[in-house]
Amino acid sequence: MPDIQKRINQWIKDHREEGTNLLQKMVQAPSTQGNEAGAQAIVAQKLQEMGLQIDSWEPDGSELKKHSYFYSPRSEFSNSPNVVGIMKGTGGGRSIILNGHIDVVPDGDRDQWDDDPYSGAIKNGRMFGRGVTDMKGGNVSLILAMQALKENGIQLKGDVIFQSVIEEESGGAGTLAAVLRGYKADAALIPEPTNMRIFPKQQGSMWFRIHVKGRSAHGGTRYEGVSAIEKSMTVINHIRALEEKRNARISDPLYQNTPIPIPINLGVIEGGNWPSSVPDLVKVEGRMGVAPEETMEQAKDEMAAWLLKLGEADQWFKENPPVLEWFGARWVPGSIDVEHELMNALVHQYRQVAGQDPVIEASPWGTDGGLLTHVGETPAIVFGPGVTEVAHYPNEYILLDNVFSTAEIIALTLIQWCGMETEQDGVTQSGTRETILGNGN
Amino acid sequence: MPDIQKRINQWIKDHREEGTNLLQKMVQAPSTQGNEAGAQAIVAQKLQEMGLQIDSWEPDGSELKKHSYFYSPRSEFSNSPNVVGIMKGTGGGRSIILNGHIDVVPDGDRDQWDDDPYSGAIKNGRMFGRGVTDMKGGNVSLILAMQALKENGIQLKGDVIFQSVIEEESGGAGTLAAVLRGYKADAALIPEPTNMRIFPKQQGSMWFRIHVKGRSAHGGTRYEGVSAIEKSMTVINHIRALEEKRNARISDPLYQNTPIPIPINLGVIEGGNWPSSVPDLVKVEGRMGVAPEETMEQAKDEMAAWLLKLGEADQWFKENPPVLEWFGARWVPGSIDVEHELMNALVHQYRQVAGQDPVIEASPWGTDGGLLTHVGETPAIVFGPGVTEVAHYPNEYILLDNVFSTAEIIALTLIQWCGMETEQDGVTQSGTRETILGNGN
Repeated sequence: MPDIQKRINQWIKDHREEGTNLLQKMVQAPSTQGNEAGAQAIVAQKLQEMGLQIDSWEPDGSELKKHSYFYSPRSEFSNSPNVVGIMKGTGGGRSIILNGHIDVVPDGDRDQWDDDPYSGAIKNGRMFGRGVTDMKGGNVSLILAMQALKENGIQLKGDVIFQSVIEEESGGAGTLAAVLRGYKADAALIPEPTNMRIFPKQQGSMWFRIHVKGRSAHGGTRYEGVSAIEKSMTVINHIRALEEKRNARISDPLYQNTPIPIPINLGVIEGGNWPSSVPDLVKVEGRMGVAPEETMEQAKDEMAAWLLKLGEADQWFKENPPVLEWFGARWVPGSIDVEHELMNALVHQYRQVAGQDPVIEASPWGTDGGLLTHVGETPAIVFGPGVTEVAHYPNEYILLDNVFSTAEIIALTLIQWCGMETEQDGVTQSGTRETILGNGN
Repeated sequence: MPDIQKRINQWIKDHREEGTNLLQKMVQAPSTQGNEAGAQAIVAQKLQEMGLQIDSWEPDGSELKKHSYFYSPRSEFSNSPNVVGIMKGTGGGRSIILNGHIDVVPDGDRDQWDDDPYSGAIKNGRMFGRGVTDMKGGNVSLILAMQALKENGIQLKGDVIFQSVIEEESGGAGTLAAVLRGYKADAALIPEPTNMRIFPKQQGSMWFRIHVKGRSAHGGTRYEGVSAIEKSMTVINHIRALEEKRNARISDPLYQNTPIPIPINLGVIEGGNWPSSVPDLVKVEGRMGVAPEETMEQAKDEMAAWLLKLGEADQWFKENPPVLEWFGARWVPGSIDVEHELMNALVHQYRQVAGQDPVIEASPWGTDGGLLTHVGETPAIVFGPGVTEVAHYPNEYILLDNVFSTAEIIALTLIQWCGMETEQDGVTQSGTRETILGNGN
């Protein structure tokens, strides 16, 4: 094991407790939409202690709204700050953005949680809590990686820009605000929960709402009306068929292990206002996956055309076509060349630390990587320690071991990508690389 | 046409405009749950002008709650008064309760209304507005019937107790309060919207809520979760099958023209809280029809047992059985002997006025008649001018002609049932009857 890897590895072993406490504190600060300030304060304080240069600000909604990539259910972000910490390089190296979101989704039906959703309870190597996997665990990996370099006196040549952003779960307004503030880099890394798989491609997605009409009537003579609930069941089955059709087209080998590469999720249903009345309106809200190969517009058009087909089989839908609207969140699909230098560095250091080849796939969900790629001109890789399957679940958890090995992999990747300042001046990038990698792969 | 019928008929002809204006004023006072005071004030003032003895009071929720037949989503009725007007008889006749509810259901999706839901607009013989058919039109028929007797100097022997009650649409707390205040009679008439059909039997009904569980997951990996929306579709189809099963049993000839004698209506659906999450809980609220022959308990038990069957076909339901609860509104089934004297009087006067036989059926919905029958020991007939098909609909309307012919039929029925005071004392009931009915049937 090369000397530097040994030192990083040892330092992280020695700081497991410190990292665990930091993660626990972050989980215990519930940072659902609008309530991010508490968790961000913890992050900012930590970065300050590490001697990073801090930039914390509340995004200006009125400015953001002018941008075509802005999507959020709100446009007022006071008390919802972004936090950026900059680890300035000595120059001459490649820069990187380390991006993680601080916002978490609601905890849902509390009865399904064994502990309080914000307990941060630890049980045989797992920490539990809303957001621990998506994605505060990944954020802690980033922070530990930077701290490990700092405290081992390792000076990087390229700048490291750490971003703790709001709003990822509802459209990426936090990352958009960071891009518009001027933050760019040669590449980016986002430690979303990938089970430590490496995602060079990220699926896009957007939110839709479908209004399904019925005709009201007294429940006792319900046969005189048309139930919007029953009609919405037809619409839902129709959307299932569209999902099948769209996924049958996906041939990208990066998706080969994904049961449904680009799912259409129906997340919210609401209709009717009186148990004894036939409901005349049902609203269904959902999230449509967008393939890295297609545009948002193509996906929208396909959904709209598909819904129109309902009128062919059913006179009611012909006279009362479901109304489709796109609202709120939207994640742009993103990608990086699988042969990109940051990919090579990450894959190499993964092998060094994990002692095996990484799984390389396309992400089953949208991330802020799309905004970094398309608006920030910063190609992004998604790679993180979280457990994909429990993101947005009750009893969300993370394996603490993975938080620390991810930190180690990222620390070494930063050295390889940004370059390290050594005694001998003017050492070349590749030269630097050898000192890190020791005798070959 | 007997002399008295002529006089009543003429008086009502002469007072169409007055009756129309009263109905319009009542419709323009929206009396949804909690907002009944304005419409009740109009009724009380009218009864006062007619010289009736008024009893107006706000039911005491804390008292009502102690009664096993009390059902309401609320228990606070301040500013929601009941209004009773008594037309005292001279004695020796049969008494009657004329009961109509003042509360109306919500107006639903306003886009489906051609005019404002509370316009009271009149277009070729029809008045439009929420509540005009269910059941302010019927209430106006009652008021006109009493006024016609008064202004024609016709003195009845039996008491006429007119009740304008709240809460019929959510469980009958208004009528229950009137019963508990001591109002009873030898029989009752309720002019709910029956299209002038006569309903000696009234279907009962009650409200239920079903909680359908799912397992939350990120929408992008929705295959890792279980959608409570998709599971609720299975539950809804299962309930449709129960409705078929229950209605296949109904053989009562009074239901022969009713497509679904005892429907199970699903009126409200609500579930999920995030478009990008797999929903973990969906709530469905509905209204179960109860046959006059069965008890509320039998119907409840059948629904509970039926839902358990879901577990036989689906492991998910076996481990996560839908949770059934009964809440809020409940209407007790009611009935009167089809050979009851009030039935004979009503049927006879219907023939006299309409010149044809009435349609006699069982009501497709619950009314306060069940409470009058079972708690008030006052058997009830449901017969009114409203258009059944538009009750609880957008663009609810009533045919004004029917309001007036119903008023005429009821006025004559009151004379026949309560008995009329004539010059010659001690005239027998049948004697009285002849003077009304003239020469024979």
